Amino acid sequence: MRNILVIGAGRSASSLIKYLLDKSGQEQLQITIADLSLELAQKKTKNHPNAKAIAFDIFNEQQRHEEIQKADIIVSMLPASMHIEVAKDCITFKKNMVTASYISKEMQELDKAAKENGLIFMNEIGLDPGIDHMSAMKILDEIREKGGKTILFESFCGGLVAPESDTNLWNYKFTWNPRNVVLAGQGGAAKFIQEGTYKYIPYNKLFRRTEFLEVEGYGRFEGYANRDSLKYRTVYGLDDALTCYRGTIRRVGYSRAWDILVQLGMTDDSYTIENSEDMTYREFTNSFLPYHPTDTVEIKLRHAQKIDQDDVIWDKLLELDIFNADKKITLKNATPAQVLEKILSEKWTLEPKDKDMIVMYHKFGYKLDGEKKQIDSTMVCIGDDQTYTAMAKTVGLPVAIAAIKILNGEIKTPGVQLPIAKEVYTPILKELEEYGVIFKEEHVDYLGYNPLNVSS
Amino acid sequence: MRNILVIGAGRSASSLIKYLLDKSGQEQLQITIADLSLELAQKKTKNHPNAKAIAFDIFNEQQRHEEIQKADIIVSMLPASMHIEVAKDCITFKKNMVTASYISKEMQELDKAAKENGLIFMNEIGLDPGIDHMSAMKILDEIREKGGKTILFESFCGGLVAPESDTNLWNYKFTWNPRNVVLAGQGGAAKFIQEGTYKYIPYNKLFRRTEFLEVEGYGRFEGYANRDSLKYRTVYGLDDALTCYRGTIRRVGYSRAWDILVQLGMTDDSYTIENSEDMTYREFTNSFLPYHPTDTVEIKLRHAQKIDQDDVIWDKLLELDIFNADKKITLKNATPAQVLEKILSEKWTLEPKDKDMIVMYHKFGYKLDGEKKQIDSTMVCIGDDQTYTAMAKTVGLPVAIAAIKILNGEIKTPGVQLPIAKEVYTPILKELEEYGVIFKEEHVDYLGYNPLNVSS
Repeated sequence: MRNILVIGAGRSASSLIKYLLDKSGQEQLQITIADLSLELAQKKTKNHPNAKAIAFDIFNEQQRHEEIQKADIIVSMLPASMHIEVAKDCITFKKNMVTASYISKEMQELDKAAKENGLIFMNEIGLDPGIDHMSAMKILDEIREKGGKTILFESFCGGLVAPESDTNLWNYKFTWNPRNVVLAGQGGAAKFIQEGTYKYIPYNKLFRRTEFLEVEGYGRFEGYANRDSLKYRTVYGLDDALTCYRGTIRRVGYSRAWDILVQLGMTDDSYTIENSEDMTYREFTNSFLPYHPTDTVEIKLRHAQKIDQDDVIWDKLLELDIFNADKKITLKNATPAQVLEKILSEKWTLEPKDKDMIVMYHKFGYKLDGEKKQIDSTMVCIGDDQTYTAMAKTVGLPVAIAAIKILNGEIKTPGVQLPIAKEVYTPILKELEEYGVIFKEEHVDYLGYNPLNVSS
Repeated sequence: MRNILVIGAGRSASSLIKYLLDKSGQEQLQITIADLSLELAQKKTKNHPNAKAIAFDIFNEQQRHEEIQKADIIVSMLPASMHIEVAKDCITFKKNMVTASYISKEMQELDKAAKENGLIFMNEIGLDPGIDHMSAMKILDEIREKGGKTILFESFCGGLVAPESDTNLWNYKFTWNPRNVVLAGQGGAAKFIQEGTYKYIPYNKLFRRTEFLEVEGYGRFEGYANRDSLKYRTVYGLDDALTCYRGTIRRVGYSRAWDILVQLGMTDDSYTIENSEDMTYREFTNSFLPYHPTDTVEIKLRHAQKIDQDDVIWDKLLELDIFNADKKITLKNATPAQVLEKILSEKWTLEPKDKDMIVMYHKFGYKLDGEKKQIDSTMVCIGDDQTYTAMAKTVGLPVAIAAIKILNGEIKTPGVQLPIAKEVYTPILKELEEYGVIFKEEHVDYLGYNPLNVSS
């Protein structure tokens, strides 16, 4: 029997734990599910004979050492900032480790020690980061191998609501942390490179410079730019690519309507509103509009944002109930962003039977034998229910698969890693297909931004 | 003879020092001008028999103690953060002190010690803060004394270029710290109260929600909201006023054009531009606009900002030369705001013969005997030249006058003060009139935002 210690049994660990339990007989696994909440851990083990649930406090050093020593590999699904304590223990007790989080500076500093001890610390192997790395690197490597040179790379990902559960005018529900959705794009301009030119989009323009994406069978989506599109430019070997862009996927029309909330100032998290607790939704909306003794909040907002009588944006705003003069905010000392999150949560929370959906879209433009070509690669994954969500599947399954492949010696390169090596992504992408995480690749006409090489 | 120690002989100290030198015979003053630069201090003393210039390092404790001990009063024109060391010494050596800076938390904490020692630490007695406090309190007190109740207070101040030197399309030149002009309004929403309702203007709307101001003999100006209009609400006794607003004055049209630069992202100071050093002005402008193989930067900007063919904004942008494809930025690792500051400095720097202008505008709405009334109070001050600027006069003269009045025992209330007491503002405002700092008060129709008490 091989011992796997899974730390953290939250939402994103459901599919991961189920996978490990399902494989435990065949793979001879003994799985320990550790969580601050014993109840939560027990719920996930489902009395499986090869699983044990324990109450676990990451800050209890003695317990941490004991459990890590007992395990053959550690899967940490903790919040990103907490991995490092586990990682240091993994060096001490010579254990491999897997996380779905971005490699922190502290984690990267363990690279040398991990290599010296022949240990694999695999990170960024969830959805985004994770499946995006693997599916992108697969095609980038293929292009390279056939002698091509990638000149354009665009990559989009979004957590959305499944078509069958898509019941509001925004075509959006919260399938992940609502706060991150409200604050999306804040904290600096979005930066990318397009046809060799660095481009910067300030927050106040971010949701107005979108790009449309068609996914066969699912219709049209739109993408807005992520903060830093160039983070993996070097890692992916794209330093010479003329275009490098990463974005977030929404349904068409979401961004244009969201921009109204941004322009009003409702997404601001930098100050608190006076008397937010007793304020009505209508008063909240009015606080961002000029005073007028007789004009209504509605006409003031229409005028301030230049929303025509027949613009569909208006119905989206009405649907959020932001003009309600009876409903109170009931949050003390709240920032506009916190108030907005509350207002949205009432409308955008998944119903018990709702399913979520993950959409990923890569575009690879490349030059081969003097010709410009393009491959589009798309993946859509729909959740089974509210436990085995698309988010839980796409985040958790690659982590679980990687853990077993490390145990079995199929993934062998030591060090602090992310899944960009063929050794890693080939078998994992292949196995993910069995679980419905399937990329469709299509060879399309090159649609770069300057296909005729016009000089400007 | 009474000894005055003036620490800091920079731009804003010119009129202050001249005033003290001119009064030194009559008032029996011996003035020590202390600056890190002996040359600068000497330039300001002009070999006056009652003045002495010294090289002075605020961080040289021994020298600081010596000079402060020798003085009867200390005038600190240091950067705001440096006053505190001087203030602590003033407690130790029992000296009065005057500054033109905002009262810091550390300064406020010396209030008790100052009072126990019978010392006057007069702060915020420059222009803004300073003359604004005094001229506002004068009228607020008068309204109170005749039994009125202030229901509206608006206060605007701006440092501009004098009409005779107003030679560009923006009707603006830098008369103070250019960096502060570029960053104006950033770091949180502007907050004020209007007809009893708290209002918040996000940065991206700040320059589009302006208010016009007419000043007799000087034409029309506009004002945009300051970050925190409510800072002095309690200090001024305006907790019950329905409207409380503070703003910055510009010439009409400035804000609308400035907003284009804001919307483009050129005022962002939160990240650095790639390769800013070698970039041309045109490339800088283009970096905020979408890529296109053939469209010009000009048409892309016009389209992105919806600038019509005949809009005067366009000429303002052309005047800044932001489409120049030859001029290089030459700043290493610069933020957009730093680049913009450089571009503007080439166009908005005062010529040797240019004069500056300070404009202040207060509106006081009040209720008296059931009737609503309004007083408008305006002040325009024009600089003599580039040494005795309007800024130097309005910042320095009240400081200098206060210093002598403290020496002479005319201002007596001890503690950490700002000039809101009648004892302080009455004689100072009166003497300022001799130097051309004259407020014109006008009784006008009440122009509140809800004069008919319409309920909304």
